[in-house]
Amino acid sequence: MEDRTELNTLGEFGLIERIASQQSFTHPLTVQGIGDDAAVIDGGKEYLLVSTELLAEGVHFDLSYVPLKHLGYKAVVAGISDILAMNGTPRQLTVGIAVSNRFSIEAIDTLYAGIYAACKEYEVELVGGDTTSSRAGLVLSVTAIGGVEKSKIVYRKGASAHDIICVSGDLGGAYLGLQVLEREKRVFLDDPENQPVLAGHEYVLERQLKPEARVDIIRQLRDLGIVPTSMIDISDGLASDLRQLAKASGLGVRVFEEQIPIHQKSYLTATELKLGPFTAALNGGEDYELLFTIKQEDYQKILDHTTDISFIGFVSPDPEEALFITKQNEAIPLAAQGWERTDTE
Amino acid sequence: MEDRTELNTLGEFGLIERIASQQSFTHPLTVQGIGDDAAVIDGGKEYLLVSTELLAEGVHFDLSYVPLKHLGYKAVVAGISDILAMNGTPRQLTVGIAVSNRFSIEAIDTLYAGIYAACKEYEVELVGGDTTSSRAGLVLSVTAIGGVEKSKIVYRKGASAHDIICVSGDLGGAYLGLQVLEREKRVFLDDPENQPVLAGHEYVLERQLKPEARVDIIRQLRDLGIVPTSMIDISDGLASDLRQLAKASGLGVRVFEEQIPIHQKSYLTATELKLGPFTAALNGGEDYELLFTIKQEDYQKILDHTTDISFIGFVSPDPEEALFITKQNEAIPLAAQGWERTDTE
Repeated sequence: MEDRTELNTLGEFGLIERIASQQSFTHPLTVQGIGDDAAVIDGGKEYLLVSTELLAEGVHFDLSYVPLKHLGYKAVVAGISDILAMNGTPRQLTVGIAVSNRFSIEAIDTLYAGIYAACKEYEVELVGGDTTSSRAGLVLSVTAIGGVEKSKIVYRKGASAHDIICVSGDLGGAYLGLQVLEREKRVFLDDPENQPVLAGHEYVLERQLKPEARVDIIRQLRDLGIVPTSMIDISDGLASDLRQLAKASGLGVRVFEEQIPIHQKSYLTATELKLGPFTAALNGGEDYELLFTIKQEDYQKILDHTTDISFIGFVSPDPEEALFITKQNEAIPLAAQGWERTDTE
Repeated sequence: MEDRTELNTLGEFGLIERIASQQSFTHPLTVQGIGDDAAVIDGGKEYLLVSTELLAEGVHFDLSYVPLKHLGYKAVVAGISDILAMNGTPRQLTVGIAVSNRFSIEAIDTLYAGIYAACKEYEVELVGGDTTSSRAGLVLSVTAIGGVEKSKIVYRKGASAHDIICVSGDLGGAYLGLQVLEREKRVFLDDPENQPVLAGHEYVLERQLKPEARVDIIRQLRDLGIVPTSMIDISDGLASDLRQLAKASGLGVRVFEEQIPIHQKSYLTATELKLGPFTAALNGGEDYELLFTIKQEDYQKILDHTTDISFIGFVSPDPEEALFITKQNEAIPLAAQGWERTDTE
């Protein structure tokens, strides 16, 4: 018998680390390989950034409630967000699609209408890709390409103890939007005569179905002359991404419940769904906000210029520390999340 | 009722043209977008090349006879071949994999062992990617990244009338290897006690299971100071790729049966399988050889230095002309192939 170890014993991060550790060839022009939001390649005058995402039907999206146009838009946003997380400018992308015959040409047109809408919004050009038939479901592969001035690049690593942890926008909305859609799907499956009740949840639905990449935040920081000391985009959830950030710098983190930005409308939806809004913010994922650290001296500059960046905590010198401090001043360990989390089943 | 047009009415090339025609944003740093083997981006000192391929189980490969290690190797070769087809040097790649739980960690290790073996062989580094679970089967996405000196880039377009059409290596082997594997699969399905009979077909099996990208040809041309006037890699089959090449330059082609390179072992397999060796060479695909055009003055230089490049015909000034001239001097139109051709069912 051959050895057989189940894939889910490793988790996605474990699998990526395992794959990365087996590499034996390195290229002299590679500055950063596997392990950051995007790969960094020496392009002479600047650094070139490349990031690949894969989105699979039934895992990342459920076409029974995700319109194809939104799916196309969101796939591009996810790719662009990885370039922004390196403090870069997204410029081009390639898209591969594997589709089964159940998709018509009109359906593919709708998917690309969403892709092109995002391209226009973020000024990126679709420069290539591949189309193929598929046995089952839709799989999308998005490779985002960008560039960054060498002195302005920001990695996941690079934070120092006592740096301030910042997050853009607000968190948890995308996850709560998904819960509303899942609830209405269950209602519909129980009785197809039922029309979905989405009124009152527009904010979280928009966060789930049409997230935006925070190119405006990157521009603001540039205008303020601030280069974050480390950065990641929030795709897996604040808790998981905070731990990634801390681990990359070999340091710890301490964040405060009262500083976590949650939108008023997300609170309302969470209350109706009997879900904890902080659980959604910490573990929800797909917000595509930027999580970054700054030197203490940059704090006032941000405070003076924007209210769309929250200061949620500090980098701790102790690498073992990853704490969430509640309003009652209790310290709770931040739990990491893994591989199956985004599975919609 | 919404309009519904079946996907297979367009074909893969039609679908790509349709997608490309809907683009509205172009980036100033994009030199060549959709429509060549790789996208071309202005990187300052040189051109950057990016190409994405998607490989889906049951469409591009059948895991009942394709070992995972070979699949990994071949996926990298397919990506690298696109960079070579622009006269470029491949340097990095990203790989996305969507896998179902039926794959163990050991199976994923084997797939990556093949990917890394190709990385080492071609001196490219795996710099990123994505791993996700999948509902059904394995989907691989490979994005190859490379560079080329601006004055040395070769596009699909660029040929002139009377240029000589060249092809590296020999053709049809990969397709014939696939036919042997398919035959043995049928025999096995009829009676699982039967062991596959592969002896005598090693050459074509190697062409199918472990093709190589012709980086040696690109180096030879460089050493000879020859820049082809146009180029494409043979992934879809000589007939289809010839038509792509001719169409890109707005010209025609005329190729000669007696000049088409077919390996002696491919002949023998074709004979045993009662298949036409020229049909395999013209329509088979997956050979990953390079098809290119040169100026007449470069002919002698190549002839003097290598026997691994064949001169198979001429570029014709008539864009309507796409002819295959048989040994009996009959002129037969070259038929193009489409989307479903590589489907293994």
